[in-house]
Amino acid sequence: MSDNCFAPLVAHLADYTWQYLSDSENQLRWKTLVGGPEATTKGMSFGICELPPGARLPPHHHAEDEVYYVVEGNGEVLLDDKIVPVTSGSVLFVPGNLVHGARNDSEATLTLVWMFAVDRWSDVAYHGAERDL
Amino acid sequence: MSDNCFAPLVAHLADYTWQYLSDSENQLRWKTLVGGPEATTKGMSFGICELPPGARLPPHHHAEDEVYYVVEGNGEVLLDDKIVPVTSGSVLFVPGNLVHGARNDSEATLTLVWMFAVDRWSDVAYHGAERDL
Repeated sequence: MSDNCFAPLVAHLADYTWQYLSDSENQLRWKTLVGGPEATTKGMSFGICELPPGARLPPHHHAEDEVYYVVEGNGEVLLDDKIVPVTSGSVLFVPGNLVHGARNDSEATLTLVWMFAVDRWSDVAYHGAERDL
Repeated sequence: MSDNCFAPLVAHLADYTWQYLSDSENQLRWKTLVGGPEATTKGMSFGICELPPGARLPPHHHAEDEVYYVVEGNGEVLLDDKIVPVTSGSVLFVPGNLVHGARNDSEATLTLVWMFAVDRWSDVAYHGAERDL
């Protein structure tokens, strides 16, 4: 009934493997749920990121705009030179090229979802930023 | 530090008003968090939808691809002529023009987030579909 050549995707968080930064002290982890390497989708990349207590999403920037939505927990997000508190229900639009990051100094995991309007998450070129967080 | 003329958005679910269908028996409700009528963002539209027990998201289609992610609860999603069970952590990519909908026959609220790669949610033209759900 669809004239779209892309098939629907029906999957679950549990179907994906967590990814970690190479910094073994940082327990940040994420899964790319839509737009990952084996995706049959297009136009959107979507994933989930967990920051356990003490974890950091190191400050970085990329050309693409990004949306964050906090699903659970509390933390702080860096936006350029500002630190903003976030909690379950917080939503952020991060314009392209703006330095951003996140930290969780609470005692519970901070969980957020992120999205880009790109076919593949690998289309997004991440650049680290020398910024304290 | 950004060469992007769009300012960051930092907001919270609680800052927005719930929207309802005109069908007063259907308690489905949603909030457009990114890409709503007063948005200063671009490229992505993102929102949250709650289906209390018994609620329906009536079958419909639109030209744009859509992503769903189930934040909480259990329910069923219609994709063309298939009904698929969803639960917290389910992720779906709904290709443009595919008929889809959702129902919650459980005893707890089903909460999902949705997104489109459009500047404004109002850019998406919804078309109802004659399909049982």
